[in-house]
Amino acid sequence: MGITFQAFKAGLDAREQRRQLLQRDGRPFYVLISQQFLRADIESLCDTATAIRRLDRHIEGREFLRSILRGHRIMNLFAQPSTRTAESFIAAADKLGASTRQVSDLRTSSFSKGESVEDAVRTLSSFFDAIVTRHQDDDFAARAAWALSRAGRPIPVISAGCGKSQHVTQSLLDIYTLRYSFAERGGIDGKDVVIIGDVARNRAARSLAYLLARFERPRIHFVSPDAFAPDDTLMRYLESHEVETSIHSALGPLLRKQGDKVDAIYVTRLQQEWDRGNNGIPDAGERGSAEDFVLAPEYRSLLRPDCLLMHPLPRVNELPEAWEDHPGFMVWRQVRNGMWIRAAVFASVFGADGEIRSRAARLRLV
Amino acid sequence: MGITFQAFKAGLDAREQRRQLLQRDGRPFYVLISQQFLRADIESLCDTATAIRRLDRHIEGREFLRSILRGHRIMNLFAQPSTRTAESFIAAADKLGASTRQVSDLRTSSFSKGESVEDAVRTLSSFFDAIVTRHQDDDFAARAAWALSRAGRPIPVISAGCGKSQHVTQSLLDIYTLRYSFAERGGIDGKDVVIIGDVARNRAARSLAYLLARFERPRIHFVSPDAFAPDDTLMRYLESHEVETSIHSALGPLLRKQGDKVDAIYVTRLQQEWDRGNNGIPDAGERGSAEDFVLAPEYRSLLRPDCLLMHPLPRVNELPEAWEDHPGFMVWRQVRNGMWIRAAVFASVFGADGEIRSRAARLRLV
Amino acid sequence: MGITFQAFKAGLDAREQRRQLLQRDGRPFYVLISQQFLRADIESLCDTATAIRRLDRHIEGREFLRSILRGHRIMNLFAQPSTRTAESFIAAADKLGASTRQVSDLRTSSFSKGESVEDAVRTLSSFFDAIVTRHQDDDFAARAAWALSRAGRPIPVISAGCGKSQHVTQSLLDIYTLRYSFAERGGIDGKDVVIIGDVARNRAARSLAYLLARFERPRIHFVSPDAFAPDDTLMRYLESHEVETSIHSALGPLLRKQGDKVDAIYVTRLQQEWDRGNNGIPDAGERGSAEDFVLAPEYRSLLRPDCLLMHPLPRVNELPEAWEDHPGFMVWRQVRNGMWIRAAVFASVFGADGEIRSRAARLRLV
Repeated sequence: MGITFQAFKAGLDAREQRRQLLQRDGRPFYVLISQQFLRADIESLCDTATAIRRLDRHIEGREFLRSILRGHRIMNLFAQPSTRTAESFIAAADKLGASTRQVSDLRTSSFSKGESVEDAVRTLSSFFDAIVTRHQDDDFAARAAWALSRAGRPIPVISAGCGKSQHVTQSLLDIYTLRYSFAERGGIDGKDVVIIGDVARNRAARSLAYLLARFERPRIHFVSPDAFAPDDTLMRYLESHEVETSIHSALGPLLRKQGDKVDAIYVTRLQQEWDRGNNGIPDAGERGSAEDFVLAPEYRSLLRPDCLLMHPLPRVNELPEAWEDHPGFMVWRQVRNGMWIRAAVFASVFGADGEIRSRAARLRLV
Repeated sequence: MGITFQAFKAGLDAREQRRQLLQRDGRPFYVLISQQFLRADIESLCDTATAIRRLDRHIEGREFLRSILRGHRIMNLFAQPSTRTAESFIAAADKLGASTRQVSDLRTSSFSKGESVEDAVRTLSSFFDAIVTRHQDDDFAARAAWALSRAGRPIPVISAGCGKSQHVTQSLLDIYTLRYSFAERGGIDGKDVVIIGDVARNRAARSLAYLLARFERPRIHFVSPDAFAPDDTLMRYLESHEVETSIHSALGPLLRKQGDKVDAIYVTRLQQEWDRGNNGIPDAGERGSAEDFVLAPEYRSLLRPDCLLMHPLPRVNELPEAWEDHPGFMVWRQVRNGMWIRAAVFASVFGADGEIRSRAARLRLV
Repeated sequence: MGITFQAFKAGLDAREQRRQLLQRDGRPFYVLISQQFLRADIESLCDTATAIRRLDRHIEGREFLRSILRGHRIMNLFAQPSTRTAESFIAAADKLGASTRQVSDLRTSSFSKGESVEDAVRTLSSFFDAIVTRHQDDDFAARAAWALSRAGRPIPVISAGCGKSQHVTQSLLDIYTLRYSFAERGGIDGKDVVIIGDVARNRAARSLAYLLARFERPRIHFVSPDAFAPDDTLMRYLESHEVETSIHSALGPLLRKQGDKVDAIYVTRLQQEWDRGNNGIPDAGERGSAEDFVLAPEYRSLLRPDCLLMHPLPRVNELPEAWEDHPGFMVWRQVRNGMWIRAAVFASVFGADGEIRSRAARLRLV
């Protein structure tokens, strides 16, 4: 029945075992961590996403897409509620004709009767062809993948964000947005990206940094509160992949010094204000990021007009509405791109990505 | 980015701006209030509903219907729970081949993380082609329509009942039921309709009265507790549209005096008993309408056999089961009609109503 | 408007009225109790399930299946939460192309506003072509069937487990699993089946016993705590159908005496430990079956290798993981079979089972 979970988990971080554990027949079978994607994989996913996006604009293309996964059933197993991510995956599956079911309350699936998580996941998996899962536990998706890999009927498992570790499909959509926007400017290679956030505990920020490492000599400028600066594992990974990095404790000085060199700013919601609320109970007005981590409207003159402004949402005060008319404001495009890249992930997991790209090429859409 | 919400809202009640704000390319884009529909619009919606109902009876017609909105995705954003209305819209969408998603708990969509309603609605709207929404706030649907109209990707917004103000699709199904039942008796023009209810705070009753005003000289007899008699805005509207009205504080005297002239009785659930419960906490047995607002079985001899008996449901004691075998008992037909008229609304919003009516005509179904 | 509920309910247990009440046009219209199925019905359902399972393996067969109930809408009305059973029915409906909606919280469907259950069920039924229902009340499904049978638009009602009485589709999947596994060994006739459980209050165990009575002289060995031994109604039924039975208060002695004669062991979760918890509040560790009702790994040598091991899930400690590599371990197959037999039930209710079996025969799949 194969390896232990400890060995499985350790293998995910070991270059030589990773592809063997995460792929089948040359395609991703488990989508768990950014590191599993090589540059060619990323390019291919992005091309597939573009093909899907363009096919979807035409009635024939749309019908073609809806035939791709017809009869396939996908379970959204979300222990942590997240309407937006869940709906993004569901819309993506729907675009390709797959059925989806949202299972949000694991308690109703008999855990409360003393059943093991393995039994519950395996039982539910019997009715589906793939699982998308979100959980507060860093290891949940990996554990589900491992448990099903030992069962008689393994099915693909895709992480939709687990614990504080990674949010791999969020970072794929971010990379897709960057790649698309930099298309006329030489792509992502060698770009300067600012990432603002509690990086050590922000899975979107961490996953994005891991993915950026697949490109040629990007420079990442982290702006984080000291307590949540990028962790050593991430920093060593970036270093070993020749990513130039710097860590800052405030945004203002960085932008004033080299704002005109910045190609993209990735803003995330910080929670340090929240953490130090009165008696631990902040009122709504106190929530949001402290000044040092807010992209204030007054920085506008420090940035180039083609600097991209991104945010994984939800936002509070850290990326004010005043930026919405900036030409680089990508936030709403990111949301739509999330749907396209997730559709590309499904297509890739089920081995239908080549067919989609070919059809789009034949119709001269790409 | 266009007008303020205050201007948008004010425009909805101003005849000259209404169509401009609510329509695009000659079709309804936002479905928010009864007043937005002219008589020709209402007739057209009813004809479309009949075409859909008849097409649905035949296997070929059903397949045709399911092709109409294939690939379209509709979000039911219901902050106020309502299984029946939600399922009616979902069934309607399903009949036309659209996918639907129910989003009931806005709290899981990051409001609790400090996000603005505008951001949340706009994010979710990215995955959909239309929004159906129910909310306890009178203005929610209008606000969502306005917010999306300023965004890069506006989509239709249909109100499924907001606050105490209006429940436009309920009144459309009520009018459809009246029109259908009066088909052999000269239609709705000049009919006597009794509306029983807390009119001032009953959105179904108010929306129905607004729609009736589009017909020729109907007479509306309101039966309401004094505290919830029809509001001045409604009464002025009815007067300006030459609707003859009367207001009564008990049903019995009205029916004894002119029950044989009544063409339809629209009963709704009152809550005055509930309001004055012991210490504000009524027990179940106390709920329901007081005697003056109940269509008691003993009134049967006062009514004509062709008098229609209607109710938007749920009912408690105000329309007793004893009426179910009355030839004018329309309640269950109203429920089914709700599905057909909502399908007609979807078809109309997406500009597919003409095609549906033509197909039904070609198949000699209408 | 037909018979009273009392007469309807009494008729379900009376051989001569049963088929008249539960069937229409020779096909099951209400699926409520195991006793309604004659042996020929069971064989036919099993054959249909096999045809569906095999058609589903081929892309053409899958497309054919999805055309069977296209345009049909099924409501899962689950007052008792049960993700696994709900998902099994939904997957089954999906395989045949039907749409499903899960309605779990009856409170949101206006019961709390004082509406009657009959009104609520009838209203919701207006949007659907069949109802699948689970409820803590033994009579709920029968009551819904009866209420709708008196209405203008009756639709099929399928019980998904009601109260402590019966869980008819669970027992159909169990019989399907037994029949399939015994195919080379003369079928279910004359087999020795051990049923472990709180039989008197375990609906899966009771329904299975009722179905076994349709076969030729099976022997059922119940292993139950005294307080929950099989009830008199069940025992009389088995006796009148010439089923040989025995009742035991511990598993060990039975297996040591005649374990090599046992053809199948049906294990269920007992709750006696739970019942006698400290102050009625057991902690999680105390849950599970007492030793006498656990299929301990040390019994392995007492059983034949072809003895089937079954469980309706969820399990706690009563069927340890150590059994998973036993050749007779059928638990995961039962889960998949649940989907196939429920699809067969839908096909049969809608009169499409003959067409499915014919297509499978034409393609030489059965």
